[in-house]
Amino acid sequence: MNSYKKLLSIIERKNSILCVGLDSDIKRLPEPFPEAVSSLFEFNREIIDATRQYAAAYKINFAFYEQYGTDGLKILEETVKYIGNDEFVIADSKRGDIGNTSTAYAYSAYNYFKSDSMTAAPYMGMDSVKPFLNFTDKLTFILALTSNPGSNDFQRLIVAGKPLYRIVIEKALNWGTKESLGFVVGATHPVELSEIREYLPDNFLLIPGVGTQGGNVEEIIKANGNSPCIINVSRDIIYADKGNNFVESASKKSSDYRDLFNSFR
Amino acid sequence: MNSYKKLLSIIERKNSILCVGLDSDIKRLPEPFPEAVSSLFEFNREIIDATRQYAAAYKINFAFYEQYGTDGLKILEETVKYIGNDEFVIADSKRGDIGNTSTAYAYSAYNYFKSDSMTAAPYMGMDSVKPFLNFTDKLTFILALTSNPGSNDFQRLIVAGKPLYRIVIEKALNWGTKESLGFVVGATHPVELSEIREYLPDNFLLIPGVGTQGGNVEEIIKANGNSPCIINVSRDIIYADKGNNFVESASKKSSDYRDLFNSFR
Repeated sequence: MNSYKKLLSIIERKNSILCVGLDSDIKRLPEPFPEAVSSLFEFNREIIDATRQYAAAYKINFAFYEQYGTDGLKILEETVKYIGNDEFVIADSKRGDIGNTSTAYAYSAYNYFKSDSMTAAPYMGMDSVKPFLNFTDKLTFILALTSNPGSNDFQRLIVAGKPLYRIVIEKALNWGTKESLGFVVGATHPVELSEIREYLPDNFLLIPGVGTQGGNVEEIIKANGNSPCIINVSRDIIYADKGNNFVESASKKSSDYRDLFNSFR
Repeated sequence: MNSYKKLLSIIERKNSILCVGLDSDIKRLPEPFPEAVSSLFEFNREIIDATRQYAAAYKINFAFYEQYGTDGLKILEETVKYIGNDEFVIADSKRGDIGNTSTAYAYSAYNYFKSDSMTAAPYMGMDSVKPFLNFTDKLTFILALTSNPGSNDFQRLIVAGKPLYRIVIEKALNWGTKESLGFVVGATHPVELSEIREYLPDNFLLIPGVGTQGGNVEEIIKANGNSPCIINVSRDIIYADKGNNFVESASKKSSDYRDLFNSFR
């Protein structure tokens, strides 16, 4: 089964469009954990156990592991293994480079770390994105309109009457299929999402920006309509409690988010 | 000494603007090396020894190491240590994400891997780039007009009469100083470089695309004028010979490139 079908099937089976983001940072771990790289896997294991019942997917933010070098990458690898095959794994690495280099990045996310999906940056154009899409059984999410304030700097610039993110989406649609190509659209842009879904009804969207970043859940899910999507929450779940109750708190938060998402779809 | 001054001083001392790109791939190693990850450090060591006399900088392409997971990253780390402080180290990782994530990527390149410089992708805007520039003693190169064919897809789109790469440069100039902020401009665009140098005379440029990618050396150096730059060559040096003479060939190629670059500046 390819990643597109796998994700649809997990969403159906678990009745959840929640993705939990493992932005695990040793400076923000709950009290029971020593502030050390060696705590990270144990923390991830507890968070995964606490949220697995409610999550369809886990998004692993490479930066948080890469900052600790080889020890961090080892933990990333163990975390992907621990998640296993019943939930979906997104390598959130936002890679993009000239062709032979993007190919190496695709090997990293798809062959080495065995993720189902990854994120990619579009600025360098077709030959920088194609190597990811050439893994046709995987699902690559290309950045379109991101959740952060800086999304206003370039992504919304008007090119021949259209915002740049729309040009990115329209061009990228020529480079992959519905099953290999998704996009990242931030939850902080419900009006734009509604317009995007008019010309992009079928592709998966990865929607970050709910929780700490403040995206409105009702607005964003209504804007998405019935199209396939997964909504990511990171910090608001994994750091829900700084003390000994972090497992219960993460579990409750993920259950609440799943239900909240379901109440609008 | 900050990275900007360090690079200027190395260029002066070695009379070279050559950067050697360590895009080391086990499938392309010369015959003496077994096709194995464990060969990579030994290959890099030989290439560095062969080229050190002629190179001002080494550019380490993270993808080529990351594709081998923790073993690859370990080799990247050892390679940076082996280069040492007499030459300049550029972490070519093209990272960019929301603020707290870019901060983690900056820690990776600057604190953990101890590089002098890194590359960053601009698509996500100010808060995705600022965390790199906040390392004010380092030199971050932001992608402007890249060397690959895909640079035509988005970077040259016209926004209010200007190409997008110019908007990227002009906005980014507000986010960093001459000493913390450089740009990537591919050697395949001499006409555009000449225009860029009219509004960007002082910032360092990292210029890839000479050699395998076909950029014209004379045109690009003349277009750059007397502004600070470093020109990268990767495959044409490190894979100059597939046999036992790879050390001599890499040495000769790097010497030739240094002299060729110097003949036009």
